[in-house]
Amino acid sequence: MKCTVCRGPAVIDVRRHNANFCAEHFVAHCEEQVRRALHQFRMVEPGDRILVAVSGGKDSLALWDLLVRLGYRADGLYLGLGIGEYSDESGQYTRAFASGRGLELIEVDLREHYGFDVPAGAKAAKRVPCSACGLSKRHLFNQAAVDGGYDVLATGHNLDDEAAVLFGNVLRWNVDYLARQAPVLPARGGFPRKVKPLVRLAEREMAAYCVVRGIDYQVEECPMAKGNRHLGYKEALNSIEAQSPGSKSAFYFEFLDKAAQRFNSDFADDQEALLACARCGAPTPVEVCAFCRLVEKATSVPSSRRIPVAGA
Amino acid sequence: MKCTVCRGPAVIDVRRHNANFCAEHFVAHCEEQVRRALHQFRMVEPGDRILVAVSGGKDSLALWDLLVRLGYRADGLYLGLGIGEYSDESGQYTRAFASGRGLELIEVDLREHYGFDVPAGAKAAKRVPCSACGLSKRHLFNQAAVDGGYDVLATGHNLDDEAAVLFGNVLRWNVDYLARQAPVLPARGGFPRKVKPLVRLAEREMAAYCVVRGIDYQVEECPMAKGNRHLGYKEALNSIEAQSPGSKSAFYFEFLDKAAQRFNSDFADDQEALLACARCGAPTPVEVCAFCRLVEKATSVPSSRRIPVAGA
Repeated sequence: MKCTVCRGPAVIDVRRHNANFCAEHFVAHCEEQVRRALHQFRMVEPGDRILVAVSGGKDSLALWDLLVRLGYRADGLYLGLGIGEYSDESGQYTRAFASGRGLELIEVDLREHYGFDVPAGAKAAKRVPCSACGLSKRHLFNQAAVDGGYDVLATGHNLDDEAAVLFGNVLRWNVDYLARQAPVLPARGGFPRKVKPLVRLAEREMAAYCVVRGIDYQVEECPMAKGNRHLGYKEALNSIEAQSPGSKSAFYFEFLDKAAQRFNSDFADDQEALLACARCGAPTPVEVCAFCRLVEKATSVPSSRRIPVAGA
Repeated sequence: MKCTVCRGPAVIDVRRHNANFCAEHFVAHCEEQVRRALHQFRMVEPGDRILVAVSGGKDSLALWDLLVRLGYRADGLYLGLGIGEYSDESGQYTRAFASGRGLELIEVDLREHYGFDVPAGAKAAKRVPCSACGLSKRHLFNQAAVDGGYDVLATGHNLDDEAAVLFGNVLRWNVDYLARQAPVLPARGGFPRKVKPLVRLAEREMAAYCVVRGIDYQVEECPMAKGNRHLGYKEALNSIEAQSPGSKSAFYFEFLDKAAQRFNSDFADDQEALLACARCGAPTPVEVCAFCRLVEKATSVPSSRRIPVAGA
C-alpha cells in the first residue's frame, strides 16, 4: 500500500477518498479537510477567539491540535462531569495535552460549581444519563464561552457523529432537529457561534491522527453511553459504508446541500420564541431554562443561589 | 404467549404493536391493516377494478388473497421474466394459487411477447439486472392495466420494502424519488392509479400470513437480487428495529406525515414534462421511453415492430 501523494509506504487507507497516505501526508490530509470545512461553512472569521470543548478523547484533542497547527488562537474548555473513574482519567489526558503544549485550559466542575454530577443529575431528573449530560454540556459550554469573551465554540463532532445524529433524526423525522443540524450554528441571543470543524473527517481518521501525532487520549468510551441508540445508528451506517464507501459522507453532505433548507422554516419560528431564563439569563423557550431546572431537581436548591463560575 | 385478543395460544408476536395473535386473530390483524391502508390513503374507490401484480412470492399472493377476502374485484397479472428456474417456479406457484381459487390470471411473457428476458436485457443495456427488471415490470404493469381497463394496479410492497427504498433515497437525498415515495400514485396520462395496500404490514407478517392461510409460495429470493444494496438497507433497518421495535414504521409513516410534502414541488415540475413515447405511446420525459429503448438494445429490433400483447 503506497501513499497516494508521495508513493512512500502508506500507514492508512481512506476508502471514501480512494486514497492511501503516509504519516506526513495523512496529517496534511486532516489539516486540509479541516481547512476546507472552516472555509466551506465560514466557521471562523479573522481575529476570532476560539474555545475548544475538550473531553480527553481522540476527537476533541485532535481538533485542538489541528486548530493550533493551522494557526488559530484556540483555548480549551474541560468539564468535570463526575462520571467516576472515567471522568478522572479524561481530565488527566486533557491536562497533560494542554500543559505539554503550553495551551490555555479552562476547567468547570459540575460537582464543585453546581453541586451535582451527571449520574446524580440524571437520576434526580429521571432523564437518561446522555440526556442530562448533553443538556449540562450545552449550557456550560455556552456560559464559559460568553464569560470568557470567546467568539466561537468548537466541538469535536466528526463525520460519523453527525451522520449518526442525522440518521436518528431522519428515522423519526424530527423536523425541528433536522432544521438545526448544521456544521455551523450562528451566534444568537447570548449563545456563541458553534462550529464543528471535523465534519469532513471520520472517526477512524481521528483515531489514526492521534496515533500518528503521538497524542495520548482516552480510548475508553463513556460507560454511561453503552448500548444507547446513537451507537446502534453508527453501527447501521457502518454496515452501509462497508458496502458502499462514501455513503456516510454523501448522506450528510447531500442533506446539507439538498434537504436541510426544506426544514428551515420550522427553525425560524422556533428562534423567535426565545426568552432569557429567569434564573441564569440564558436563552430559553420557557421561563426557567432546562439546565436550571436540572440543577434544582439534582440539588433541591434553586440554581440562582449557586455561584455560576466559568473558568477555574 | 397468549393472543392479545382472545387469550388463546398465540402463534406470532408483533413487537411494534406490542401484541400476540392466534391464527384467527392474526388473519384479522392483517385484514384490518390492509383495510386501514386502503382507507387512510384512499387507495380504491367503490366499483374500481383492481389488477394485482403477482410474482408467486409471499407478499403478492397474500395481497391478492387479502383483497379478495375483503370483497374487492381483483384479477392477477403475472409477468414471465425469464430468470431461469426461478421464473419457471414462480409461475407455477402463481397459477396454482389462481386456479385453486378460481381467480382470473393474466400472463405476459417477456421472451414470448418482446423477444428477450431480464438477464439478456440487462446485459444488452449494460444495466444491473434489478434495474432492467424494474423498468420492464413498471412498463408492462401499466400497459396490462390500461389494456384490460383496470382502474387500479396493486403491488405487494410491504413496510420493509418501502422503508428500505426510503432509506436508500434518504442516504443520497434523491429529492426526486423522495417526492414520489407514496403508498398511492394517482392515475395520470395513461398510467393507472398505483397502490401498495401492504405498507402497514412487515415482511415477517406476510410470510406468517401465508403459512397460516395455507398459501404455497416461492420462498427463494430472486437469484439476481443477491447482494444488492436494497438488501443491505433492509439489514441495517432490521438492526435498528431489533433495538427499538416500531422504528421502521415510524421512519416510513412519519416521513409521509411530516416530510414528504417538503419534496413535492420537485415532483410537480417533473410531471409537467411528460410526453407520449414515439413508439408505444406510454408517458415518458423523453422521445422514446426507457422500455422501448431497452427492447431495442436487447433485440436489435425497434419495439414498434413487435406486437405489444397484454393478457395471455
